[in-house]
Amino acid sequence: MNLRKIRNLGLFLLLIPLSFHAEDGSQLWLRFPNAKGGLAKEKIVSKGNSKTLQIAKTELTNYWQGQAIELKIDNKLSSLKDGYTIKTSGNKIVVSAAKESGLLYGVYHLLRLQETKSNLSQLNITEKPSYDVRILNHWDNLNGTVERGYAGRSLWKWEDLPNKISPRYEAYARANASVGINAVVLNNVNASPNILKKNYIDKVKVMADIFRAYGIKVYLSVNFSSPKVIDGLENSDPLNKDVQNWWKDKAAEIYKTIPDFGGFLVKANSEGEPGPQDYGRTHADGANMMAKVLKPYGGLIMWRAFVYSPSSDDRAKQAYLEFKPLDGQFDDNVIIQIKNGPIDFQPREVFSPLFGALKKTPEMVEFQLTQEYLGHSNHLVYLAPMFKENLDSDTFSDGKGSTIAKLTDGTLRPAKVTAISAVANIGEDTNWTGHHFAQANWYAFGRLAWNHQLSSEQIADEWIKQTFTSEANFLKPVKEIMLTSRETTVDYMMPLGLHHIFAGVHHYGPEPWGNYENTRADWSPYYYHKADVNGIGFDRSSKGSNASSQYSSPLKEMYNDVETTPENMILWFHRVPWTYKMKNGKNLWENMAYQYDNGVKNVRQYQILWDKMEPYVDEERFKHIQSRLKIQSKDAVWWKDACLLYFQTFSKMPIPYDIERPVHELEDLKKIKLNMGHHN
Amino acid sequence: MNLRKIRNLGLFLLLIPLSFHAEDGSQLWLRFPNAKGGLAKEKIVSKGNSKTLQIAKTELTNYWQGQAIELKIDNKLSSLKDGYTIKTSGNKIVVSAAKESGLLYGVYHLLRLQETKSNLSQLNITEKPSYDVRILNHWDNLNGTVERGYAGRSLWKWEDLPNKISPRYEAYARANASVGINAVVLNNVNASPNILKKNYIDKVKVMADIFRAYGIKVYLSVNFSSPKVIDGLENSDPLNKDVQNWWKDKAAEIYKTIPDFGGFLVKANSEGEPGPQDYGRTHADGANMMAKVLKPYGGLIMWRAFVYSPSSDDRAKQAYLEFKPLDGQFDDNVIIQIKNGPIDFQPREVFSPLFGALKKTPEMVEFQLTQEYLGHSNHLVYLAPMFKENLDSDTFSDGKGSTIAKLTDGTLRPAKVTAISAVANIGEDTNWTGHHFAQANWYAFGRLAWNHQLSSEQIADEWIKQTFTSEANFLKPVKEIMLTSRETTVDYMMPLGLHHIFAGVHHYGPEPWGNYENTRADWSPYYYHKADVNGIGFDRSSKGSNASSQYSSPLKEMYNDVETTPENMILWFHRVPWTYKMKNGKNLWENMAYQYDNGVKNVRQYQILWDKMEPYVDEERFKHIQSRLKIQSKDAVWWKDACLLYFQTFSKMPIPYDIERPVHELEDLKKIKLNMGHHN
Repeated sequence: MNLRKIRNLGLFLLLIPLSFHAEDGSQLWLRFPNAKGGLAKEKIVSKGNSKTLQIAKTELTNYWQGQAIELKIDNKLSSLKDGYTIKTSGNKIVVSAAKESGLLYGVYHLLRLQETKSNLSQLNITEKPSYDVRILNHWDNLNGTVERGYAGRSLWKWEDLPNKISPRYEAYARANASVGINAVVLNNVNASPNILKKNYIDKVKVMADIFRAYGIKVYLSVNFSSPKVIDGLENSDPLNKDVQNWWKDKAAEIYKTIPDFGGFLVKANSEGEPGPQDYGRTHADGANMMAKVLKPYGGLIMWRAFVYSPSSDDRAKQAYLEFKPLDGQFDDNVIIQIKNGPIDFQPREVFSPLFGALKKTPEMVEFQLTQEYLGHSNHLVYLAPMFKENLDSDTFSDGKGSTIAKLTDGTLRPAKVTAISAVANIGEDTNWTGHHFAQANWYAFGRLAWNHQLSSEQIADEWIKQTFTSEANFLKPVKEIMLTSRETTVDYMMPLGLHHIFAGVHHYGPEPWGNYENTRADWSPYYYHKADVNGIGFDRSSKGSNASSQYSSPLKEMYNDVETTPENMILWFHRVPWTYKMKNGKNLWENMAYQYDNGVKNVRQYQILWDKMEPYVDEERFKHIQSRLKIQSKDAVWWKDACLLYFQTFSKMPIPYDIERPVHELEDLKKIKLNMGHHN
Repeated sequence: MNLRKIRNLGLFLLLIPLSFHAEDGSQLWLRFPNAKGGLAKEKIVSKGNSKTLQIAKTELTNYWQGQAIELKIDNKLSSLKDGYTIKTSGNKIVVSAAKESGLLYGVYHLLRLQETKSNLSQLNITEKPSYDVRILNHWDNLNGTVERGYAGRSLWKWEDLPNKISPRYEAYARANASVGINAVVLNNVNASPNILKKNYIDKVKVMADIFRAYGIKVYLSVNFSSPKVIDGLENSDPLNKDVQNWWKDKAAEIYKTIPDFGGFLVKANSEGEPGPQDYGRTHADGANMMAKVLKPYGGLIMWRAFVYSPSSDDRAKQAYLEFKPLDGQFDDNVIIQIKNGPIDFQPREVFSPLFGALKKTPEMVEFQLTQEYLGHSNHLVYLAPMFKENLDSDTFSDGKGSTIAKLTDGTLRPAKVTAISAVANIGEDTNWTGHHFAQANWYAFGRLAWNHQLSSEQIADEWIKQTFTSEANFLKPVKEIMLTSRETTVDYMMPLGLHHIFAGVHHYGPEPWGNYENTRADWSPYYYHKADVNGIGFDRSSKGSNASSQYSSPLKEMYNDVETTPENMILWFHRVPWTYKMKNGKNLWENMAYQYDNGVKNVRQYQILWDKMEPYVDEERFKHIQSRLKIQSKDAVWWKDACLLYFQTFSKMPIPYDIERPVHELEDLKKIKLNMGHHN
């Protein structure tokens, strides 16, 4: 095969088995190390030859080691939406779906079963996704940087598009399809108006064309001031006819170019972004104006609830305060995108009180895969348990059992469209996500978006087997690392409900002492912990900000009382004396110290476990992960020392003597200024 | 008391109780925290009013809380040399000695008993020092720097002398007297010829005058090229009459100025210093030439055996090879000063084979208090156990029981004069030694020079009680730290006989990978460990350099055989395969790993023990020591990681999995270049 021929393969190049690749992580969980030629073409039965079907068939001819396969469109299965059935029928397996993308998902399901060494006999599978829209939000800027990106610069080469096309666009789409992700917001929520200019829409079209074959729709983040900025309109007031027409024309232009365009994601009146409130209008006014122009094309508006102003009221309350009064005022193709917690993707947050509070407005969760607050791409933190914790949280909004999952997936509140989103952790790094284990978070989001009832353990199991090996000696300890890693990170970063005590701007290391002048109070760590000699924590009870009252009963009563608040959230809701007696009989200060120490110990244990894995993993990934764990281990000590030494200046109590002592000086730690921005 | 009056107090200013001092370590072990006015003058019986007696009496009137004291010169006690007796007689205590300095030592003995809460009733003490000359070698340069000094710049303010006199000269002399040190070499063995110029002799005289009252004689390091450099003689050949006369005149000049001048310390033909070999003469020719000019005045020549040339022969053998043939050729006022080990003050060395090998030549030990190879003033390392290990080493030179102590103190070989020396760890830091606990090494050297049969434990006990407190809760753990600290340091730096794998020039951190081009082989760490895939260690058996043969039987046979060599010295004498089975059943590599890990664990344990001491110690010293222990703890991990990661590239075996994993990358550690010289 000569080079020219390889180039001519174009779209499907990435589907050729890549066994000659180094183990650099570029293949993600789609490695197929044991595939020795796949299924003979003749053994695939299918009608039609669409791109999607071609992809499905090529995956089978490349990798499927089993019996004959039939791929069958079956309109009777439309109630499964993107879902499918897989059934053994005689000596073949029949994959059926109402949509071609469903067939592709079915093929990936089969390959997953094969790679995880599952039983492939007598299959009788029916799959229906938990959410209609399973979307990744890329915070990629048009200049190639990625806000909160830790895996290199943007995968999107805007300057090369629409002419030069990176083969990674397709590899990316394939990875998404393999886990059921069917939507992508290409650009940062802090959106440049330029994305809506004609030349950018032409670039977006190229990607949409590639993604479409993998069942993926393209969405864009839009800047609310676009009409004014791009075309010099007097303003961008949503009640201004000219503005409305501008958006109408823009929608027409987009849909002419990209007929299946997904819709807009909007960050408005948040952290300095423009929005309807600039003109005295509400979020509903703004969202509905856009919703109306997309409606004829079936487009969606995902309107972010991440709003907080430098007001004197508790930041954790503000999204609720702004959006609750607007309940029922949004058009039916608007969906409110709510971060899992009321602050901002902290290692642990209580769920946002907006979930369930909007009775007549569709809601969706926004998770964050990129580890803005979780050690960037240096720390191994498997996020499925955090996502599950949120989705399984019972809000009691509609009575007992009103979990966020059931509120957002249509179970409790029939919805026109359901959705779930996560901020992507993907960049141009060869291994896509910076840390090899961060791939698992991409994988886990996709899998949970497809089926939120999967356990964290099952997802980890699948991912490990496909990405590394099914060898039991590897599987068990690595799963142990993954499943405990999020709690470990909470322990060494901010246990007991502590939150947002990160160093400014970059959010990498600890800065509990941060209390900046000349800026809004809620941009200082002090705002969140308020430690002094009397105690520590944010009083969100009725004696304080009363944020607890934003929850439904019995949660509002539970959170209002320090004695009934779960201890892992105690400092989120209460200001607690250092000597407060915890359930284990130790006081608050001691508990804090033991939790920090536990975090450090666990990371060290991960190092040991990982080092033992050397015989089971290629040298390249072994060393890369070993090296990141060293950083995590040092960082855990840094966090522990910084927080314990700083808080000790108030608690005035010794660190319990069975705990390893600090090795840093508080004053030295205060001097650390990392040369990091907030994007890569 | 006005300021003028304070200034007029002159010599005795430092004897005023300094209870108003911060606990900054400036008072050393002479704190007397409970002294509420001392003995009434009338209760002191003594004849004469020499400066020495005045000092003794002032110490009593300031600090002695007990009964009346008589200080009595008794010439019948001359066999005790600097010693004394202390006897209770009726309702008073009689201190008797042949010399006034003996009475002063007796007074410090009493105060020590008081401060250590010893039984003061019915005293019947007879003390005679182990060595006649108990000398500190200062490696202080005339420009104020201190070679291998880690406690600030030099205490000696040469530029201010002879006019301006620091009060610390007397405080220094008093500290020495309090532990029995009676001699001082003021300047670096790498000596500037200028020290012998008239203006410097005048400066030295001032110090000699201060020190004299405390029983201390001044010595000087001299540069062998002085005649040529200072007065332009054609050469400095010791057989040149002009040279001999120059030294004769110089001696006359010195003794006219300082009648009790002690003598010269000489580093000749060593590390580039000039010496008799420059003219084809021997060390004996050089030493004797000088000895003859000092002889009329009772002066001593301390001639250093620390010689090694860039020859192909094992550095550890060279001092023996050069000096053994000269045995019997030295004048009787020459004493050969031999470093404890054959290399250079390593954390652990076998004793120098020169001890005992020179049958007809007086020998003295040179220890090093300044922690050139022991973590400078950052690491807490109590050196008494190392000194004892050396002094108690049986050389078998004169049959069983020929310990270095007995060989050098006159027991086995009647000597005209006996001596013991240590390189000082003192600088202008307020606390004198950089690390508060380094004061203990100064203290321990003095006490061992006085009585080498004292145990390390007893000395630590005395020092802790005087320097901190007698509180049992403090005494026991701090003693545990001190007594184990040297072995701990060996563990985390270079266990199993490893040596000199320090980073070049500054000798602070690890650099086992050091293998420098364009310099002599024995200035590279590789020379000392020779690690490769086959094993590690320096073969000094008969199959290798045969350094083992320089020891007396049965040591030479014992060291020649890997099976009988003590395991803590195994890599000093042998090249050992990584898989070599040690006595505990583990292989060499595993043993190495466990020892490094043990070192780290112990330092962390010291941190815990020290933190528990907070209630028993002033905040100032508590924090200072706590801070240094943090550094030591981090450095221990640095050493462990550097050595294990580097040697692992050869052993090819995993670090045992019950050991905490490295947190550094070998390549990062290799890049560390500390901005440190070899002097302060």
